[in-house]
Amino acid sequence: MDETRANAELIEKARQMCYPDSVAVIGASDNVLKWGSFLIISLLKGGFEGPIYPINPKAEKVMGLTCYPSVVDCPGPVDLAFITLPQPLVLTAIADCKAKGVNNVVVITSGYSETGGPGAQFEKELAAAVRDSGMRMLGPNTMGMISTHQKLSCTGANAQPPRGGISMISQSGNLGAQVMMWAEEQNVGVNKFFGTGNEGDLSCTDLLYYLAHDDSTNAVLCYLEGVDDGQAFLKVARETSEKKPVVILKSGRTEAGAKAAASHTGALAGSHEIFKGAMRQAGVIVVRQPQDLIDGAAGSYLPMPKGNRVAVVTLGGGWGVVASDLCADFNLKLPGLPQEVIDKLDKMLPSFWSRENPIDLVGQVDPGIYADALEAVVSSDRYDAILTLGLIGSSSFVADTVENAHAVAPDTVTDVMMKQVVDMSRGIEQGMRDDIVRLTKKYGKPIVNVSLDKRHLQTVIPDGKGDFVVAFNTPEKAVRVLGGMAYYQAWRRSVGLPEL
Amino acid sequence: MDETRANAELIEKARQMCYPDSVAVIGASDNVLKWGSFLIISLLKGGFEGPIYPINPKAEKVMGLTCYPSVVDCPGPVDLAFITLPQPLVLTAIADCKAKGVNNVVVITSGYSETGGPGAQFEKELAAAVRDSGMRMLGPNTMGMISTHQKLSCTGANAQPPRGGISMISQSGNLGAQVMMWAEEQNVGVNKFFGTGNEGDLSCTDLLYYLAHDDSTNAVLCYLEGVDDGQAFLKVARETSEKKPVVILKSGRTEAGAKAAASHTGALAGSHEIFKGAMRQAGVIVVRQPQDLIDGAAGSYLPMPKGNRVAVVTLGGGWGVVASDLCADFNLKLPGLPQEVIDKLDKMLPSFWSRENPIDLVGQVDPGIYADALEAVVSSDRYDAILTLGLIGSSSFVADTVENAHAVAPDTVTDVMMKQVVDMSRGIEQGMRDDIVRLTKKYGKPIVNVSLDKRHLQTVIPDGKGDFVVAFNTPEKAVRVLGGMAYYQAWRRSVGLPEL
Repeated sequence: MDETRANAELIEKARQMCYPDSVAVIGASDNVLKWGSFLIISLLKGGFEGPIYPINPKAEKVMGLTCYPSVVDCPGPVDLAFITLPQPLVLTAIADCKAKGVNNVVVITSGYSETGGPGAQFEKELAAAVRDSGMRMLGPNTMGMISTHQKLSCTGANAQPPRGGISMISQSGNLGAQVMMWAEEQNVGVNKFFGTGNEGDLSCTDLLYYLAHDDSTNAVLCYLEGVDDGQAFLKVARETSEKKPVVILKSGRTEAGAKAAASHTGALAGSHEIFKGAMRQAGVIVVRQPQDLIDGAAGSYLPMPKGNRVAVVTLGGGWGVVASDLCADFNLKLPGLPQEVIDKLDKMLPSFWSRENPIDLVGQVDPGIYADALEAVVSSDRYDAILTLGLIGSSSFVADTVENAHAVAPDTVTDVMMKQVVDMSRGIEQGMRDDIVRLTKKYGKPIVNVSLDKRHLQTVIPDGKGDFVVAFNTPEKAVRVLGGMAYYQAWRRSVGLPEL
Repeated sequence: MDETRANAELIEKARQMCYPDSVAVIGASDNVLKWGSFLIISLLKGGFEGPIYPINPKAEKVMGLTCYPSVVDCPGPVDLAFITLPQPLVLTAIADCKAKGVNNVVVITSGYSETGGPGAQFEKELAAAVRDSGMRMLGPNTMGMISTHQKLSCTGANAQPPRGGISMISQSGNLGAQVMMWAEEQNVGVNKFFGTGNEGDLSCTDLLYYLAHDDSTNAVLCYLEGVDDGQAFLKVARETSEKKPVVILKSGRTEAGAKAAASHTGALAGSHEIFKGAMRQAGVIVVRQPQDLIDGAAGSYLPMPKGNRVAVVTLGGGWGVVASDLCADFNLKLPGLPQEVIDKLDKMLPSFWSRENPIDLVGQVDPGIYADALEAVVSSDRYDAILTLGLIGSSSFVADTVENAHAVAPDTVTDVMMKQVVDMSRGIEQGMRDDIVRLTKKYGKPIVNVSLDKRHLQTVIPDGKGDFVVAFNTPEKAVRVLGGMAYYQAWRRSVGLPEL
C-alpha cells in the first residue's frame, strides 16, 4: 500500500473512531469502583446519542441499559467497542468484534508491554489480531477517549469538558485526564482527546497526523514521554504546525525525568535538548508544565498577535513590575508609549501617572475610564498585544467590601444598600467584559487578562452573548501564553507561511 | 545614640505598633468606596478588641462607632493612628497625634514622593514632623498593616488571613494585599503584614530587623522592588536567616522590570544578578513569582528536610515523570530504592510495579495499602523528604464517579448507595490525612503532597485535631517549596549553623 493511500485510510479510520453511531462496552459492570462502570457512566453523562451496548454475560442490565452476553448479540451494528476485560479474555473479544463487523476498538485493559515480561508478547498478539480484523485500535492500557462534537466521552475519569476546538493526545492517561478535568473547570473547549496507552496500534504520530487533517481541530496539545520514531513524529509535527498551533509538553527533560519515563512507558531516553530544538524548528510551542497545556488551549480563544510588542495596563504598580520581568523572560518587548497615547491618557489619569509602559491606572480612578484608556492603547500600532492586570475582577473588591461592611455594621450599610452596590459592581464587571470583547474584535489584537478575583475560577469567561474573555489567575500564565503565540507567529513568518 | 540602643528602640517601637491597645482612624467615612471606610470595616471584621476611634469632624458615627472631630478628642489614650486624609491635611493630623501622645502612625495618604515633583518635599516634611513627635511611621502611601495575634487587620484590602507564624513585608501594597488574600483562601497562617509604602520613616530593612527579633514570627516573606542601602539590607537579611527562613521576591530582575520598578517606586536599578547572588549568600530563599511567596509560607507547616534526597510516591506514572524533571530543576535528588524498601513494597504492590523512585502505586490498588507503602518509604534513611502525587484527594474520584452514576442511573445507583460511597470516600480521605500527620511526626520528615482534587482549594488542610497536611495543587509548587527548604538547610550547614 503506498504512503498516500495508507495516510488516507488512517484519516478515515481515525475519523470513524471519533464519530461512531453506536458503541459497545465489553466488560460492563454496575460496580462503581470498576472500569466497566466508569465507561458507561462517562458515556451516559456525556449524552452520547446513539445506542450504547453494555456487554457482560453475567448481567441483564448495566446502569439501566440492556446488557448483552457478547458483542455479536447486539441487536444493531456496533461502530466502536471499548474493551475492559481481564487481559486473558481480550483476544476472544477482538474475535467477536471482527465477527460482528465492529469498525474500531479502544482497549482499556492493562497487563501488556507496560508490565514487562510476557506482556510485550501479549501485546504483539493483540496488535496482530486487530490488524487481521481490519480494525484500528487505541491502546491497550489507555484511559480512553473523548470526541465532544459526537457527545462521546468514554474515559476512566470524570471529565466532561465543554465542546470546542482544541484536541489533545496524551501518553499518560492520568495526566491527560487531569488536563481534561481542568478544561471542564476552566471552561476551555475541547474537540477530541486520546489517551494513547501503550500505542499497540495507533501511535501519537498517527493521531497527530489525523488531527492535522481534522478541520474541526484548531490547535493540538500533546503530552509526550517518548516516541519510537522521532524523525517521523517531527515531520508530522512540522506539517501540523503549518496548519494550526501545536503545544507539546515532552517530559523526561532531565536525567531523573528520563529515567522515570523509561520506567513508566518504556520511553527511550534521547537527548532532550536536541529533540526540543527540533520541535521548535518544527514550529511547536514547547512547554514545561501540565498546566501550560490547558493555558495554551485557553489562548486559542484569542486572535494571534502580529508580533511580540506588548502594552501592560495595570491597576497595581507592583503587578506591572512583576509582569515586566515575565515579559522579558518570554521574549516579549514593552515599547514605550507613543506621544499620541500619552496625550489621550493625560486627559483621563491623575497628573502624576507614570507615562510609561506598564501603564498604571493608579487604583483610585473611576472604572468609567478603563475602556477609554484601554482603547487608547489597543488602537496604537506600536503594540501587537495587550496584557491587563486586575481590570477583570476589580469590581469584586467593591462587592467584598460592601458585604463585609454589611456584616460588621448592618445598620449603617443596610441590606438594600449592599445589594445595590453588589449589583452595580456586577454591572461594571459585565461592562468590562463587553468592552474587552468589543475592542478585541475592533482591532483584531489579543487582550489577555489577569484576574485576581477569588470568585473567578474560569479562564474562559463567557460574555453571555456568545463571545469570551480570557483571564488567567497569574501574570505568569498570561505572559507565557502570549509568548508562545508570538513565538508561533514568528516561526510562521520565518518559514514563509502566511500569518494567522 | 549608639547602634545597639537605636536597634533596641526600633524593636520596641515596631512591637508597640503591632500590639496597640487602641486605634484611631483619622479620615473615617461611611462611604464604602473610600479608604476611610475600608480601614474601619477591616478593623471591625478582624475583631480588634480595644477601642476603635473613627475621626471625622463632619460625622457623628462611622460604621456604627462613635466618631470624634479630632484625635485629641478621643475619650481614652490612642496607641496607633491610621491616617487617610487628603495630603494637605496630614501634617495637622500628625501634630494632633503628637498632642494626644499617640505612639505610632500609619499614613495611608498618597501624593508624596511617588508622584514626583513637590511630593518628595512634602514627604521630607512629613518624616521630619513624625521624627520630631517621637512616633514611628509606616508609609506614607501604604496599603496598611496586619497583626493577627492582636486581632488587628487594618488595610485597604479585604484580607483577613488566619493567625499563624509567617510575617510579610511588601514594597507593593496591592501585591502584598493579594498575598494576604491568598493566605486567607489557602489557610496559610499569618502573623504580621506591613505594606511599606514610600518608606518615609520605617524601611523594609528596619521592619526585617524587627521581625528577626520577633520570636512569634517563624519565617519572613518579602516583596522588594529596591532598597536604598543594599549592604545594610543584606546584613539584616543574613542576621535574620540565621534565626528563621527568609523568602524574597525581588522584582526588577530584568531590564524591562527594573525600568518598571523605577517608574513605580523609584527603585534604583542595580545589577540583579549581583544582588541575587548576595541574597543567596545571606541564606535567603529567592523566588520569582508572587505565588511562590505564599507557597513558601505553606512550607512552614512542615519539618525541615535534613538534605535534598526525595522519594516520590505517585498514583499516576506521568505525574511521576513530570515531578522527576522538576526535582532535577530544583536541585533535588531521587536516589533509587534500597532493597529493604523494595522488599516491603513487593508484598503490597502488583508484581509488575516499577521498583524505582518515583514509586508508582499503580492506580488500581486498594487505598488500604497507601499508609503502609508510605511508611515503608518515609522510614528509609535514604530519603530526607517525601513527595506524594494524588494520594490526598484521590478518594474524591470515587465520590465524583458515584455522584455521576446516581445522576445517570438513579435506579441502579440509588441515593442511599451514593451517600454510602461518598461517606466511605470521605473516611478514606480523613484516614489519609491522619496517616500523613502521624508519619510526619513519627519520622520528623516533610511529607509534601500534591492534590489534583478540584474540591480542594486550601493548601494548608486541617486534620480536625489541631495538625495540618500541606497539599499544593501543582507538582511544581510542591517541588519548588521543597527545593527552597533544602537550599536553606544546606546554607545553614555551610555557614556552621545548627540544622533546623
